[in-house]
Amino acid sequence: MTVLDATEEQSHGAATPPVVDFDTSPDRYKHWSIDIDGAIATVTLRVDEDGGLVPGYALKMNSYDLGVDIELYDAVQRLRFEHPEVKSVVLTGGMERMFCAGANIRMLAQSSHAWKVNFCKFTNETRNGIEDATENSGQTWIAALNGTAAGGGYEVALACDEIILIDDNSSTVSLPEVPLLGVLPGTGGLTRVVDKRNVRKDRADLFATKSEGYRGSTAVEWGLVDATVPRNSFVETVTARAKELASTSTRSAAGQGIELTPLERTENHDEISYRYVRATLDREARRVDIEVRGPKSAPPSGAAEIHEQGVAYWPMAFARELDDLVLRLRTNEISLGTWVFRSAGDSAAVLAYDQQLTDLASDWLVNEIRHYLKRTFKRLDVTSRSLIAVIEPGSCFAGFLAEIALAADRQYMLEGVYEDIDPAATPATIQLTASNDGTYPMGNGLSRLESRFWGRQDDLANAREAIGKSLNASAADAAGLVTVALDDIDFADEVRIALEERTSLSPDALTGMEANHRFVGPETLETKIFGRLTAWQNWIFIRPNASGPDGALRRYGTGQRGEYDYDRV
Amino acid sequence: MTVLDATEEQSHGAATPPVVDFDTSPDRYKHWSIDIDGAIATVTLRVDEDGGLVPGYALKMNSYDLGVDIELYDAVQRLRFEHPEVKSVVLTGGMERMFCAGANIRMLAQSSHAWKVNFCKFTNETRNGIEDATENSGQTWIAALNGTAAGGGYEVALACDEIILIDDNSSTVSLPEVPLLGVLPGTGGLTRVVDKRNVRKDRADLFATKSEGYRGSTAVEWGLVDATVPRNSFVETVTARAKELASTSTRSAAGQGIELTPLERTENHDEISYRYVRATLDREARRVDIEVRGPKSAPPSGAAEIHEQGVAYWPMAFARELDDLVLRLRTNEISLGTWVFRSAGDSAAVLAYDQQLTDLASDWLVNEIRHYLKRTFKRLDVTSRSLIAVIEPGSCFAGFLAEIALAADRQYMLEGVYEDIDPAATPATIQLTASNDGTYPMGNGLSRLESRFWGRQDDLANAREAIGKSLNASAADAAGLVTVALDDIDFADEVRIALEERTSLSPDALTGMEANHRFVGPETLETKIFGRLTAWQNWIFIRPNASGPDGALRRYGTGQRGEYDYDRV
Repeated sequence: MTVLDATEEQSHGAATPPVVDFDTSPDRYKHWSIDIDGAIATVTLRVDEDGGLVPGYALKMNSYDLGVDIELYDAVQRLRFEHPEVKSVVLTGGMERMFCAGANIRMLAQSSHAWKVNFCKFTNETRNGIEDATENSGQTWIAALNGTAAGGGYEVALACDEIILIDDNSSTVSLPEVPLLGVLPGTGGLTRVVDKRNVRKDRADLFATKSEGYRGSTAVEWGLVDATVPRNSFVETVTARAKELASTSTRSAAGQGIELTPLERTENHDEISYRYVRATLDREARRVDIEVRGPKSAPPSGAAEIHEQGVAYWPMAFARELDDLVLRLRTNEISLGTWVFRSAGDSAAVLAYDQQLTDLASDWLVNEIRHYLKRTFKRLDVTSRSLIAVIEPGSCFAGFLAEIALAADRQYMLEGVYEDIDPAATPATIQLTASNDGTYPMGNGLSRLESRFWGRQDDLANAREAIGKSLNASAADAAGLVTVALDDIDFADEVRIALEERTSLSPDALTGMEANHRFVGPETLETKIFGRLTAWQNWIFIRPNASGPDGALRRYGTGQRGEYDYDRV
Repeated sequence: MTVLDATEEQSHGAATPPVVDFDTSPDRYKHWSIDIDGAIATVTLRVDEDGGLVPGYALKMNSYDLGVDIELYDAVQRLRFEHPEVKSVVLTGGMERMFCAGANIRMLAQSSHAWKVNFCKFTNETRNGIEDATENSGQTWIAALNGTAAGGGYEVALACDEIILIDDNSSTVSLPEVPLLGVLPGTGGLTRVVDKRNVRKDRADLFATKSEGYRGSTAVEWGLVDATVPRNSFVETVTARAKELASTSTRSAAGQGIELTPLERTENHDEISYRYVRATLDREARRVDIEVRGPKSAPPSGAAEIHEQGVAYWPMAFARELDDLVLRLRTNEISLGTWVFRSAGDSAAVLAYDQQLTDLASDWLVNEIRHYLKRTFKRLDVTSRSLIAVIEPGSCFAGFLAEIALAADRQYMLEGVYEDIDPAATPATIQLTASNDGTYPMGNGLSRLESRFWGRQDDLANAREAIGKSLNASAADAAGLVTVALDDIDFADEVRIALEERTSLSPDALTGMEANHRFVGPETLETKIFGRLTAWQNWIFIRPNASGPDGALRRYGTGQRGEYDYDRV
C-alpha cells in the first residue's frame, strides 16, 4: 500500500496518513508471507519495524498498524480465491518468543480518535473474515503461537478455530490492555473469550486484568488455548493438526484459483471510479453519490466460463469494487457523512446473474463470490455513515443488488418518471429474489428482509409474497420495501430536503442511532463485537484516563503510569 | 427526597447534588399523584417546576430530573406491594397539551458526565420495572398520552404495554434528541422502537430524526402508538381499556397490601447501615465493604404470617436495604470503585427462607418479593463497580443470597479457617438451591449459573449436581463456583493484593470490561439497552458535538444551534 499526499480536507494531524490505499499483493507484502504446501497454507507474520503506514512509530515486537492488517486482509482473500487447494491455514509468527504484541501502542497514542475507531473496525472485519473462511470456505485457520500473543496478537488467534501455544516456559497469551493501557482490547477479545471460547466470567476477569497473561495447563483448562506443545514438537504437532483438519474439509479442490489482479480505479479530488461503481464526492454537501452499475452483458454459460472470466465476472468485479470503495471512503473521507446509493442498468441482466449464483452455488468459486458479496454488504451495515438509497428510472435494484437498498437507512423511490427530463423512460422497479431471503445475512444472522420486518410476521409474509415480482413504486411501498414513494412533482424536493437535513445533524448521534436501528432481533458474536464492545471501547478511547495528556495510552512506554480520575461512571 | 450537604469527595461541580436520598412516599411527592379506583390506578405526572433536585433549572413542560424519577420508582413499588387490588395502571399527565417533555435539558447540560450516565441508568431500571410489573405482577401499564410525549416522555410511554395518544390535531410522540440535542434518547427509546414495538428501521430513522414527531394514523400505522382517540372520548376510552386489561389480569386480589414504611438507616461519613446490610466506606482504598446478614429467626409459619410481618419479613427487608444501598452508593459515592461483599449468618436459616419463597411462590406477596429480589440482583449486574465476593467462616452464601456471590466478578473463598483468629470456627460453605437455577434470572434471561457456564454444558451439569449440597471451598472450587480457593496461609494476602490491584486500574476500562464479561449468550431488550445503547450514548454524551462549549446539548435553549465537527467516527 502507499500513502499519498495530503489534501487539506483529509488531514487529521501530522501523524495520520492522508490517503490510505488498500491495494496490495503478496509480492509487495512487507510484513507477511504465505507458504503453500499442498492443502496447507502457512501465513507468517514477520513485521518490518520500519514499514509502518505512518511516520512516528516503529513496529517493534511484531506489533501491527493498519498497513499490516491490510496485508492480512489481502492474504485472507487470496487464499479463498486464488487457492482452492488450501484447506487449512496455519497462522504463525516469524520472530523468536513473540508471536505478536498486538496493535502498536505508539501508533494508537498518536492517532486521532476517528483513526483508532476505523482501524479497529477494519481489523475486526478481517478477524470476522478469518472465521468466515473457516465456516464457509472449508479453510480452517489454526493459530500456531510460537511465542507470546499479547493483546491484538491474542485477538487474531481468537479468530482462528484452534489455538496452539508453544510451551517454552515463557510464552503466554494475554490481554494487557486494561491493566497497561486503560482501554479494552480493540478487536473482539473480551467477547470472544467469554462468548466463543466460553471462558468463565471470573476467569475472564482475572485474565483481562493480568498483564503478563497465562500459559501452560491454566491456559488450557480455562479454554484460553486448545493445547500447549513443547518447542521440539511444536511444528510437527501443528502440521499434523493442520493435515487432520484439511482431511475433513468440505472444500472442493477442483481446478485453479482465479487471480486477484489489481483493481482498475481512477481517482481525482471529486471522484473515485471503477468499472461498475462510481463515487462522486460532494465535499461542500458532505455527501458521496455512489452509482452501482449492472452487468454489461449476459452471464457466461456455466461454471467453467465463470472461472475463466475470474475477476472480470460481473458479481465478482462489483464486489471487489464496492469493497474497495467502502474501505477508502471510510478511511479517507470521514467528513462525507452521507452516502447516497443509486443503481443503473438492466434489472433482467442482474437477475440472470443472481439466478446463476444460486444455480451454481455448489461451485467453489461461486460459493466464494456469494460469501464475498455477503461480507461486502455487511461492511455497509457497520459503516458509520448515513446510507440513503434513491431508486429512479434506469435503476436495477434487483436480486443481490437490492441488498444495497435494504442496507440503507432509508429508501426513496420515484413513482413514474421525471416528466421534465425523460417522460418516455420506464418507471423504476425493484425485484427481490430468493437470494434476498437468506443468501446474504447480516451480522445478526437474519436477512435484511427479516430484519426489516422483525417482529411483524404478517408484514414479512407480505414482503415474501412480492419475491419474484417486478415492483413499481406503489407496489414496493405496499410491500414495505421503500420509505417514501412519490411522483416527480415532489420527489426531487423531498430527497434534497432529506439530504440537507441529514447532513446538518450531529455525526456522533447519527452514528449511534444508526448502529442501534440497523441491528434488531438476535445478537451474535459479530453484533456484540460491533455493537456493545465497540461502543464501550469508543467511549473509553476518548476518556481522559486513556487519551488525555496523562492518560495511560498516552503515557505508555514513558516509564510513567497513567494518572486516573478514579470516579466510576 | 432531600439533598444533604456536600462533602469534599462527593462534589462534582456546583450544580450536581452532593448526596441524593431515595426515600419518599406519596404524601411527600412533588410531581406525581396516585389515584386508585377499584382495580385501576391512575398515576399522574404534574411536575412542580420549582421542585428540581438541584438548583439551576426549572422543570418546565412536565420535564423531569432524577428527583421526579425517584418518585416514579417509589410509585411503581407501592403499587406492587401496597395495592394487590390494582390490576392495571394508567400513566397520564396533569398538564394541558404536554404529557411530558422528557428529561430536562438544562439539567442535563449542567450535569457532570457521571451524573448523566447514572441518571439514565436509574431511569432505565425504573422503565424496566414498569415492564416487569406488567409481565410479572399482573399490573398492566397503559400510557394515556393526553398531550405531546417528547423524548424521555415518549420513552416512559414505551415502557408501558399500550400507548394511547390523544387526537387533538397537535399532540405528537417524538424522539427529538438526535436532531435537537445531538445525543440519543437516553432511556431505551431507539431499542424499544425497533425491538419492542417493531417499527421498521427506515421509519424509525425518520422518526428519530424528525424533532416534531408523528401523530394520527401515521403514528398508529408505524406502530409508534396503539391508538389515537379524540379528546372528547379520550378518558372514557382509556378507562374502558384499563378495565378490560384488569379483567384479564392474573393478579390475585386477596388481602391487603403491605405498607412500605420508611427504611431504618443510619449513616455517617464512613458507614451506611441497615438492619441486615452494612456498608463500610474506605475512601482511601476507594472500596466499600458490604456485609449482608442472614435472618435473625426462623421463617414465619405461613403466608398469613409473612403478610403480617410485611416489610420486616427478612427477604423483603434485605431486598429493600440492598436496593437502597446500591442506589445510594452508585449516585453518591462514585469514587469508591470496588464493592466487596461478605455475608454473615446461619446458612440453614437462609435456606429455610429460600425454601419458603419457593413453596409459597403462588402467594401474591411472595411473588412480589421474589421479583423484587430479582430486580435488586439485576441492579448489581449493571452497576459500574468491580464486585468481589469474599467467602469466609461465618458466611451464609446460600440460596438466593448466593446470587450476590454469583453476580460478583470474582469469588474468593477461604479453605478451612483463619487459624490465628478463630481456629475453632466452622469453615465456610456455599449452598445452591433450585432458586439459583432460574428464579432470579439476569437481564439476558439466563440464571447466573447458566451465564457462568455458558457454552459449557458439562460444567453446568456438574454445577447443577452440586445444588442442595453444602460445599466447602474445595467442593465449591470443583463445582466451578469460586475463582480462588486458598487456605489461610495465602488467602488474606491474595485478597489484599487483588483489591489493591483492582483499585489501581482505569475505572473506565473496568466499567467497559465488566459490562462485556457479565452478559454472555443471548441478548434481550434489556441487555441491549444497558449494553449497546447505553455505551453508544455514553460515548456521544462526552463528544464535543454534544457536551463541548459549542455542543448541541450545551447550546439548547440559547437560540443558537450546536456547532458540529462533521467528521464521522
